[in-house]
Amino acid sequence: MTGPAEPPSATVVDNIGLLVTSDPALGDGPLGLVRNASVVFAGGRIVAVGPAGQVADRRIDAGGRCVLPGFVDSHTHLVFAGDRGDEFAARMAGRPYEAGGIRVSMAATRAAADGDLRASTARLRHEARRAGTTTVEIKSGYGLTAADEARCLEVASAFTEETTFLGAHVVPPEFEGRPDDYVAEVCGPMLAAAVPHARWIDAFCEVGAFDADQCRTVLAAGRAAGLGLRLHANQLGHGPGVQLAVEMGCASADHCTYLSDADVAALAGSDTVATFLPATDFSTRQPYPDARRVIDAGATVAIATNCNPGSSFTTSMPFCIALAVRDMGMTAEEAVRAATAGGAAALWRDDVGGIRPGARADLIILDAPSYTHLVYRPGVPLIHDVVQAGDLAVDGGRIPSVESGR
Amino acid sequence: MTGPAEPPSATVVDNIGLLVTSDPALGDGPLGLVRNASVVFAGGRIVAVGPAGQVADRRIDAGGRCVLPGFVDSHTHLVFAGDRGDEFAARMAGRPYEAGGIRVSMAATRAAADGDLRASTARLRHEARRAGTTTVEIKSGYGLTAADEARCLEVASAFTEETTFLGAHVVPPEFEGRPDDYVAEVCGPMLAAAVPHARWIDAFCEVGAFDADQCRTVLAAGRAAGLGLRLHANQLGHGPGVQLAVEMGCASADHCTYLSDADVAALAGSDTVATFLPATDFSTRQPYPDARRVIDAGATVAIATNCNPGSSFTTSMPFCIALAVRDMGMTAEEAVRAATAGGAAALWRDDVGGIRPGARADLIILDAPSYTHLVYRPGVPLIHDVVQAGDLAVDGGRIPSVESGR
Repeated sequence: MTGPAEPPSATVVDNIGLLVTSDPALGDGPLGLVRNASVVFAGGRIVAVGPAGQVADRRIDAGGRCVLPGFVDSHTHLVFAGDRGDEFAARMAGRPYEAGGIRVSMAATRAAADGDLRASTARLRHEARRAGTTTVEIKSGYGLTAADEARCLEVASAFTEETTFLGAHVVPPEFEGRPDDYVAEVCGPMLAAAVPHARWIDAFCEVGAFDADQCRTVLAAGRAAGLGLRLHANQLGHGPGVQLAVEMGCASADHCTYLSDADVAALAGSDTVATFLPATDFSTRQPYPDARRVIDAGATVAIATNCNPGSSFTTSMPFCIALAVRDMGMTAEEAVRAATAGGAAALWRDDVGGIRPGARADLIILDAPSYTHLVYRPGVPLIHDVVQAGDLAVDGGRIPSVESGR
Repeated sequence: MTGPAEPPSATVVDNIGLLVTSDPALGDGPLGLVRNASVVFAGGRIVAVGPAGQVADRRIDAGGRCVLPGFVDSHTHLVFAGDRGDEFAARMAGRPYEAGGIRVSMAATRAAADGDLRASTARLRHEARRAGTTTVEIKSGYGLTAADEARCLEVASAFTEETTFLGAHVVPPEFEGRPDDYVAEVCGPMLAAAVPHARWIDAFCEVGAFDADQCRTVLAAGRAAGLGLRLHANQLGHGPGVQLAVEMGCASADHCTYLSDADVAALAGSDTVATFLPATDFSTRQPYPDARRVIDAGATVAIATNCNPGSSFTTSMPFCIALAVRDMGMTAEEAVRAATAGGAAALWRDDVGGIRPGARADLIILDAPSYTHLVYRPGVPLIHDVVQAGDLAVDGGRIPSVESGR
């Protein structure tokens, strides 16, 4: 005799000194703050957000710490082989960054065995999780043949559903001097090979990569194939990228380092998220974007790592949050919101990036009394525990209750 | 029958892909690099630096990783109570940093129980060790009475022999408007109470803290009492601090954010180390010092965290190294040298800050093939294992060999 399915056992995270819901409807201010809270989840979903003392089958004691939604890193290139530390050191010693360095990673990635690519991606995904990232977008773009792009997207699919086909990353050597032929390849056989493994399509709209017409062609082909659209825009100088992203209804325009007034107005008047990648500006010694201006205009903003072996080899969302506050004019509240709800918006997701009933149970227990400490304590690994879809994916072990100290 | 004492058992760290000795005499370049090396230590001291394959009683496999000397953090204020996260957040939202905030920590520190002060210091010392710091200087300066300064130095003494009396941190409220009376207190009963627990004396030479004459008086009193001298100089603007540090033969002039040509020349013509505290400039939105200019003039430079609850609440030397390269014009080699041998010079120590026979066995095994990754991978916790005085103080566990990847 088979009875009804048992309800999934519930877990309560209790004794939360400060809960960041990232949902203004659930608490104070833009982060929806709740003091002395507890959160119950079951079956991988949040079922209740309430005052401290809710009960469930299992209890995790937050010890008075701050709890916030897992970070949503909406822009990474985690599938690659090789590192480019020497190129980085040379650049820090004065040589300018050139997009051509992408080809170095392309050659190493094409040459790598499947198992090595998977292992390297797994290692970076694990590292990101230890830094609090519970949702990650992963792009291809170091294969640049139909077979290699499909292979990289297949690897990415093992780690996330947010996979992005970036055949239009740079023109590979086989198509040197024939960018339009390469765009045709991207839109034809490469796209066909990529589609089974991809949710999004992206292109690098920049001098030295692809111009607006080429990017428009790529995005249109992706849309026709059923993919959502994203765009690398305005990283290294002013250009048509942001306007194109808005024109095409991209979910996100990424980088946004150089913005004209018209670009800011276009973003503010659209549903396209402005995604900042401050670790890239750090690692390439570019100026930082003025996020203040974009936020004040009314646009939705996100922060992401852009983790890649050339221009931003970090998986740390806390590092990006600290830079966004120090150097981009954001408040700590805005930066945390951009790294959670903002990233979710950039991926058209309403089930992550916030702590509310129905959302996926993605939580960070911070080893600190406030999210402010992500900026106040730069470089210090403060992520104590990470719950991802209800599983305790990072377990910092038991430590004493945190003192609020003030 | 008692035989001769057994020789201490020896440990070899083998399979080091890249060894940073920080001693130009032992290898290539200013970092004294050796490829494919091993290091043997016994009784807490290094006994041999050689090619891979040396044998000993116990073997630690570095798996091809980079090994470097433990960091020497020559400037911290680890003994305090309370945090000032709210002050920090307000400053990031536009309010300028004022030295008066020190009094907030003073009040909390005076009110704290001995056990709480010890526990808080232990926690920060542990956090610093996980980030690779094997030698740390710790200042008093949040007690500002004879009893409280002595108490703070006694706490510090449990964690390091590099203790510094900083009674001349700021004028406490009891002496408001009577700075010279306070200086007399510092040089009299407070110094007498501090001396049994201190190796160094320091003062904060800055508008809003103490002027050059007051600092000279404090340093002279400290010297007469047998203490070595250090000085906070030129943090918030141009001033007499650096010149005074050189005049008095201080081991180090710390901050050095605003330097005239004469200041740079004075440092270059002296044994006083210029110690940069880039995380402070990060956390106070000050401009970064131009380390390039100071190095090119021939001065010895160090990098330290200045860990304190007001202007720099980080224990991470890797974060400071990354900032020094991104924003202070240092190469990765110079920054790593400044964080190891430079810190040792700033503390008049020849037994730490380098990996050479006779030195204390303080080693970092980095989870990366090169020290470059400390900058190339900002915000990522790369410190895998830490050996301090021969003990495996941080054990990252076994992980696969690192790929050089290029």
